[in-house]
Amino acid sequence: MTEKIHARVWNEFRHEKKNPQVSGIYPHGMHEAIADGLRGHGDIEVSTAWLDQPEHGLSEAILAATDVLLWWGHMNHGDVSDEVVERVRRRVLEGMGLVVLHSGHYSKIFKALMGTTCSLKWRESTDKERLWNIAPHHPITQGISEYFEIPAEEMYGEPFGIPTPDELIFISWFTGGEVFRSGATWQRGNGRVFYFRPGHETYPTYHQPEVRHIILNAVRWARPTVSIPDGCPNAPALEPLPADAESTSRPTIGFR
Amino acid sequence: MTEKIHARVWNEFRHEKKNPQVSGIYPHGMHEAIADGLRGHGDIEVSTAWLDQPEHGLSEAILAATDVLLWWGHMNHGDVSDEVVERVRRRVLEGMGLVVLHSGHYSKIFKALMGTTCSLKWRESTDKERLWNIAPHHPITQGISEYFEIPAEEMYGEPFGIPTPDELIFISWFTGGEVFRSGATWQRGNGRVFYFRPGHETYPTYHQPEVRHIILNAVRWARPTVSIPDGCPNAPALEPLPADAESTSRPTIGFR
Amino acid sequence: MTEKIHARVWNEFRHEKKNPQVSGIYPHGMHEAIADGLRGHGDIEVSTAWLDQPEHGLSEAILAATDVLLWWGHMNHGDVSDEVVERVRRRVLEGMGLVVLHSGHYSKIFKALMGTTCSLKWRESTDKERLWNIAPHHPITQGISEYFEIPAEEMYGEPFGIPTPDELIFISWFTGGEVFRSGATWQRGNGRVFYFRPGHETYPTYHQPEVRHIILNAVRWARPTVSIPDGCPNAPALEPLPADAESTSRPTIGFR
Amino acid sequence: MTEKIHARVWNEFRHEKKNPQVSGIYPHGMHEAIADGLRGHGDIEVSTAWLDQPEHGLSEAILAATDVLLWWGHMNHGDVSDEVVERVRRRVLEGMGLVVLHSGHYSKIFKALMGTTCSLKWRESTDKERLWNIAPHHPITQGISEYFEIPAEEMYGEPFGIPTPDELIFISWFTGGEVFRSGATWQRGNGRVFYFRPGHETYPTYHQPEVRHIILNAVRWARPTVSIPDGCPNAPALEPLPADAESTSRPTIGFR
Repeated sequence: MTEKIHARVWNEFRHEKKNPQVSGIYPHGMHEAIADGLRGHGDIEVSTAWLDQPEHGLSEAILAATDVLLWWGHMNHGDVSDEVVERVRRRVLEGMGLVVLHSGHYSKIFKALMGTTCSLKWRESTDKERLWNIAPHHPITQGISEYFEIPAEEMYGEPFGIPTPDELIFISWFTGGEVFRSGATWQRGNGRVFYFRPGHETYPTYHQPEVRHIILNAVRWARPTVSIPDGCPNAPALEPLPADAESTSRPTIGFR
Repeated sequence: MTEKIHARVWNEFRHEKKNPQVSGIYPHGMHEAIADGLRGHGDIEVSTAWLDQPEHGLSEAILAATDVLLWWGHMNHGDVSDEVVERVRRRVLEGMGLVVLHSGHYSKIFKALMGTTCSLKWRESTDKERLWNIAPHHPITQGISEYFEIPAEEMYGEPFGIPTPDELIFISWFTGGEVFRSGATWQRGNGRVFYFRPGHETYPTYHQPEVRHIILNAVRWARPTVSIPDGCPNAPALEPLPADAESTSRPTIGFR
Repeated sequence: MTEKIHARVWNEFRHEKKNPQVSGIYPHGMHEAIADGLRGHGDIEVSTAWLDQPEHGLSEAILAATDVLLWWGHMNHGDVSDEVVERVRRRVLEGMGLVVLHSGHYSKIFKALMGTTCSLKWRESTDKERLWNIAPHHPITQGISEYFEIPAEEMYGEPFGIPTPDELIFISWFTGGEVFRSGATWQRGNGRVFYFRPGHETYPTYHQPEVRHIILNAVRWARPTVSIPDGCPNAPALEPLPADAESTSRPTIGFR
Repeated sequence: MTEKIHARVWNEFRHEKKNPQVSGIYPHGMHEAIADGLRGHGDIEVSTAWLDQPEHGLSEAILAATDVLLWWGHMNHGDVSDEVVERVRRRVLEGMGLVVLHSGHYSKIFKALMGTTCSLKWRESTDKERLWNIAPHHPITQGISEYFEIPAEEMYGEPFGIPTPDELIFISWFTGGEVFRSGATWQRGNGRVFYFRPGHETYPTYHQPEVRHIILNAVRWARPTVSIPDGCPNAPALEPLPADAESTSRPTIGFR
């Protein structure tokens, strides 16, 4: 465990090229702001990738060298090729960590791993968001108080179309009257998945210290323990079998 | 709750046409044996469908009229069209029940709802299977004793590549030395999913009274409560919002 | 399933005798208001019990005849005898349903079944509470919309010291800025447990139609399926055992 | 995280004084064999405690200096004072790790944290036990193969009266035909709990390398992240409240 964690921040990286409000907040792209929060920590090496690179910057070789993938996407989920989604999914099931951010709730990869709609209620607005820390023992919340606030954010509201999380980490309160399960984890195969709600592109959320701190914690938490390829082996018996099925006597009746 | 449950048994229905051993045991197809176990109960109406029907017998209209779908497939999962799989998945998330049987663990629909590999260890053999009832309180196990046995079955062994079940119902013991989570439930959206392991095509498993009784219980348990179409609504605020984001004061620092 | 559900509403029943504000709202006691919401339904028979009765109204015979117990307590949890608590706990583990209301979060019986602190944040105030329906498919929420509001209630806030619920049903939003897991279920042994937050004694919460409807749903949901006494049996082998331990060869080394 | 983990192995330590078979296998007591498996690892400091010490060796000061407590008890659970059990429980809920071994399933502390019967089926016999690794990604199974075997052990069989584990780690196969959830975790408050089945006093189980390796992994996994005392604070509002309850308009009707 002395090797570094290879974290890769994936971004759609299109809003920043079209919308001056977004590029004003994130002049080098949202991925660079997220990556900045991970840099300068001796145990992590950070790289980035984005939609318009060849293979979306997620070739087999690159994914094989990635320990934890962070995902931000929004308007162009449909442009991510099914082949790359399946490749990422396979890597998560083998052991790679995945941190899904904000509108990534509707990414192909998150939906593929959850199996559900991943739908929610939303409002672009001036809501204040207060994230309550439901799991103060969890590695992802270390250093975070009972709650923290984001001065203005897009609202996401329940019901959120996810399977019951293994661990519920944050619940958000919004000024406008909604609540949301804004931090949650799932084990999927050998990989750990964390969904973290904040991060609308028109707000400076990824510059906020608490948000960056949580993402840093999540990368460390999602570090792989193993990398086990899928298999469905034909397995020889470990104990003697009956000579043939006919020789087996009628079983005990199993009715109460 | 006085209306009948419309159960539909889906079968690949190809083994029976090629393998005399299978057609000897299931002369009308495995779906008919499974359906027989559900007939004669006043609260259930039973239909069937199979792979080689138009739209695999699962048109929009048919699915709309189905409360609980039972699924048996094995060698031809790849021949099920992605469009039909997505249609079934949408119906489960809206509220339809789904009972996945035996080698259906590798069906497209089960894998799509689980998000994982659904892989396992297997052996065609003369193993005896003893299914231990881990959840004697559960509606699916009513009438079943502490355990029941199947005289000869294909072995399925752990690790089984599924998300942690919401409820673990049965664990199997096999003569050859393996164990398996052979009955498990998951809530997916508004629909209930039950996976039940037994049922290799070369054994008369679906004629065994305990197996039929459990499938009957599962159909009743998986009956829909609602049918809610997917949506991702833009929602107006329910409480007054701050006039604008700038006016919001810097939030409390959320670090411990 | 044609027999009636025997529901019993247990109340501390002391506030009503001391505090005119409470007796003004609940002239016959809070238990009578809760019981009223269950009466007039042909499938339910309702009784009551309270702290100052012999054995707190929960003798062995009475509990044996109770299918679902509802529990409201607040200031006098300590006056409930450990013997009666253990008796109730044993019945829940055998199969009896339990619906714990509001300040019952700190009752001995709820704490004994959860194993945790069951602590929370609180404020007697003029907060409005909005309960979001997180589980529209669940039997307990049938008939309830996306959310409902209680005009004024005591605030309960996270973190709530409970084990991860099996099912999270409601999350509350409070005017004052807090959130709370206000409806949740746990299977404990063969019995079903539902915690439902609303119901401070100085507000007319148990007269509100939505609250009564949810409690009615919960009673039906918590109905027992079985009644299995505890046991720790010495069990004979079902398969032949090795002649003696020495004869067993050294096992396969289980290291990777 | 550079400080050492203070692990304390608690043992009933009475079998060893009465039964020569046990003292032959464990001449210094079972706790010493378990502790030996933890010694020689630079990140762990190991101590022991036993039933017949003052306060069972678990004074407030000793518990305050314990990060992870391991618990082996069998015939004398009833001799552990309720005060010490409550003290241990409080420390687990604050953050201390707890590893419960074998017949510790019936210890007061495990039952108090689970809330259930913790009953099981058992047989002192010559069964071979094969533990299947259901969670190869989990920190507790690192280094362990698909399965490992214990040549001879007491049998424990399902149903096991526990709440659904957060994570199921091992399932055991026994020669005599039973299965058992033999490794499982639960979060309880801020502390992590691991139950691990093997370890009957008349077998040399705690000398077996795989068993020692798993217990070592478990101690590292259960290391505390926080130590948060229980509290139930009266909390001021974070947002403006309505002037009074009467002024709040009738809420939206929450019926579908």
